[in-house]
Amino acid sequence: MKDSAAPVPPSDRTRVRRIAENARYDEATLHAIVDDAYLCHIAFSDDHGAHCIPTACWRSGGHLYIHGSNGSRLLKQLVRQTCCVTISHLDGLVLARSAFNHSMNYRSAMVYGRFEAVDDEAGKHAALEALMDKLAPGRQAEIRPGNDKEYAATTVLRISLAEAACKVRAGGPNDDAQDLAWPAWAGVLPFTHARVAPVADPTCAVAAPAYVRDWPTRQEELAPIY
Amino acid sequence: MKDSAAPVPPSDRTRVRRIAENARYDEATLHAIVDDAYLCHIAFSDDHGAHCIPTACWRSGGHLYIHGSNGSRLLKQLVRQTCCVTISHLDGLVLARSAFNHSMNYRSAMVYGRFEAVDDEAGKHAALEALMDKLAPGRQAEIRPGNDKEYAATTVLRISLAEAACKVRAGGPNDDAQDLAWPAWAGVLPFTHARVAPVADPTCAVAAPAYVRDWPTRQEELAPIY
Ligand SMILES: Cc1cc2nc3c(=O)[nH]c(=O)nc-3n(C[C@H](O)[C@H](O)[C@H](O)COP(=O)(O)OP(=O)(O)OC[C@H]3O[C@@H](n4cnc5c(N)ncnc54)[C@H](O)[C@@H]3O)c2cc1C
Ligand SMILES: Cc1cc2nc3c(=O)[nH]c(=O)nc-3n(C[C@H](O)[C@H](O)[C@H](O)COP(=O)(O)OP(=O)(O)OC[C@H]3O[C@@H](n4cnc5c(N)ncnc54)[C@H](O)[C@@H]3O)c2cc1C
Ligand code: HEM
Ligand code: HEM
Repeated sequence: MKDSAAPVPPSDRTRVRRIAENARYDEATLHAIVDDAYLCHIAFSDDHGAHCIPTACWRSGGHLYIHGSNGSRLLKQLVRQTCCVTISHLDGLVLARSAFNHSMNYRSAMVYGRFEAVDDEAGKHAALEALMDKLAPGRQAEIRPGNDKEYAATTVLRISLAEAACKVRAGGPNDDAQDLAWPAWAGVLPFTHARVAPVADPTCAVAAPAYVRDWPTRQEELAPIY
Repeated sequence: MKDSAAPVPPSDRTRVRRIAENARYDEATLHAIVDDAYLCHIAFSDDHGAHCIPTACWRSGGHLYIHGSNGSRLLKQLVRQTCCVTISHLDGLVLARSAFNHSMNYRSAMVYGRFEAVDDEAGKHAALEALMDKLAPGRQAEIRPGNDKEYAATTVLRISLAEAACKVRAGGPNDDAQDLAWPAWAGVLPFTHARVAPVADPTCAVAAPAYVRDWPTRQEELAPIY
C-alpha cells in the first residue's frame, strides 16, 4: 500500500512528466477511478502495429479483469506481451479567459504490466460474477447462469494494478494574473456519465427489480462531478 | 467516400473480425462518432513498451486533430511511428436473461495511420480555433487569443481518417430462444454523457453567454441515447 501523503511512483515508466503536479500514485485514487469505469482502452502491438482496443473491465482486489472469446486477437496477444491499460473520465471543459489556458477536468489511470489467464473454473466463475455484481447488484441470482459450453468458449484475464499512475485535474481555470480582467466568461462546463431511464425489452414481462428502478438515481452516489 | 450500403473495409488491418455484423465502414458513421467525442485514446510504443494516452481531439474535414506541448513525449513519438487512435462511447448496459448474452451498447471508432505536424502558423491557428468552436461556438471572439510565445510552445498534429473502422452495438439483448421465458428482467440500462449546470469561476463578473446558459440542454441535440 502506497502512502498517499508522500506518494512514490512505482516505476520510471509511470512517473508523470507533463503537468506532474496533477499526478496521483496512491491506491485509493487508482481504485476509485477504476471502480467508476465500465470501460478501459488497451494498447498492445502485433504484426499490424499498435492497437488501441476498448473493452469492458472491472476490479477485484488488486487486479483489473477483462473477458471475451477464446478466439479474440486481443486476448490472445495480451498474455504474450506487456501492455498499457488506460481508464479516463472526462469531467468537464475548463473555460479560461485566454485560449491557451483552456483545459479539461478529468480523472485518468494508466496501468502497465502483463495480463495472466484466470484458468481455473472457480476463479473464472467468480470473476464473471464480480462483473455482474458491479453492473446490477443481486442480478446474478436471477439470471440463467453460464453453462459449461459458454464458460469453455470464454477467456478471462487479469492484470495487477501494482504498476500504475493517475492524473487528475479538477477545479476552475488557471488564468494568468494579467488576464483576470479580460471580459470573457470563465468557469467549468461539467459532464457526468449519467444514467437515464431503463428501456425494457418488448418481450419482457418481469417487473423491474430495484437495480433497474434505481438506475437513473445511481449516478449521484457514484460520479463526482468536478 | 465509401458506400455505406455496401461498405468495404479500407485495409486488412481495419477489417472487424469479432461480431463482424456490427462493423461500419462508412464515413457518416465515422464522422458522427468522432464529432460526438472530446477525447480519444492513442496507442503507440517507445523504449518502455506500449502506451495508451488519453487526449483531447477534434475533427476538421477528413482529419482528426490533437495538440499539446512541444516537449510532450506523446507528440514527439506520434510523428515518428504509425499509431492507432480510438474513440468509444458507452451507451448502455445490455441485460439479457442469460449471463453469457449480457453486453454493452456502444459506438467506437479505430483509426490507423501516422500523425503529421500542422506547422504553418495559419493552419495551427485555424486548427485551435476549430477546437474552440467545437467546445463553445462564438467564444473565440471573446477570449484573449493565443500570443506568439504560446503558439510557439504548442504542437498541433493531425491524422487522416482514411484508414478506419467503426463498431456499433445498439438495441436490446439477444437472448437464446430457449431463455426467453426465463424470469429475469431484460432490457437496457442506458448512459448518456450528460452536460450539467455550469460552474462560474468565483472571480468571474461576466454574464454567462448563450453557450454557457444552454450547456445543460445541449445534450439532447448531440448524444443519441442507445
Ligand atoms: C480528458 C483528457 C484530455 C487530455 N487532453 C490533452 C491534450 O489536449 N493535450 C495534451 O498534451 N495532453 C492531454 N491530456 C493529458 C495526456 O493524457 C498526457 O498526460 C499528456 O499528453 C502527456 O503525455 P506524455 O506521453 O508526453 O506523458 P508523460 O508525462 O511523459 O508520461 C509519463 C508517464 O506518466 C503517466 N501518465 C501520463 N499521462 C497520464 C494520464 N493522463 N493518466 C495517468 N497516467 C499518466 C504514464 O505512466 C506515462 O507513461 C489529456 C488527458 C485527459 C484524461
Ligand atoms: C464499450 C465497449 C465494451 C466492450 N467490451 C468487450 C468485452 O468485454 N469483451 C470483448 O471481447 N470485446 C469487447 N468489446 C469489443 C472490442 O472493442 C473488440 O471489438 C473485441 O474485443 C475484438 O478485439 P480483437 O482485437 O480481437 O478484434 P478484431 O475483430 O480482430 O479486430 C480487427 C480490426 O477490427 C477493427 N475493430 C475491432 N474492434 C473494434 C471496435 N471496437 N471499434 C472499431 N473498430 C474495431 C480494428 O480495425 C481492428 O484492428 C467492447 C467494445 C466497446 C466499445
Ligand atoms: C490557443 C489555443 C491553445 C493552445 C496554444 C494550447 C496549448 C496547449 C499546450 C502547450 C499544452 C501542453 C501542456 C503541457 O503538457 O505542459 C496543452 C494541454 C492541454 N490543452 Fe491546450 N491549448 C489551447 C487551447 C485549448 C483548448 C481550447 C482546450 C480545450 C479544453 C485545451 C485543452 C487542453 C488540455 C486538456 C490539455 C492537457 C493538460 C494536461 O496534461 O492535463 N487547450 N494545451
Ligand atoms: C457468464 C458470463 C459471461 C460470459 C461467459 C461471457 C462471454 C463472452 C464472450 C465469449 C464474448 C466474446 C464474443 C465474441 O468476441 O465473439 C463476450 C463479449 C462481450 N461481453 Fe461477455 N460474457 C459474460 C458476461 C458478460 C457481462 C455480465 C457483460 C456486461 C455487460 C458482458 C459484456 C460483454 C461485451 C460488451 C462483449 C463484447 C461484445 C462485442 O464485441 O461487441 N459479458 N462475452
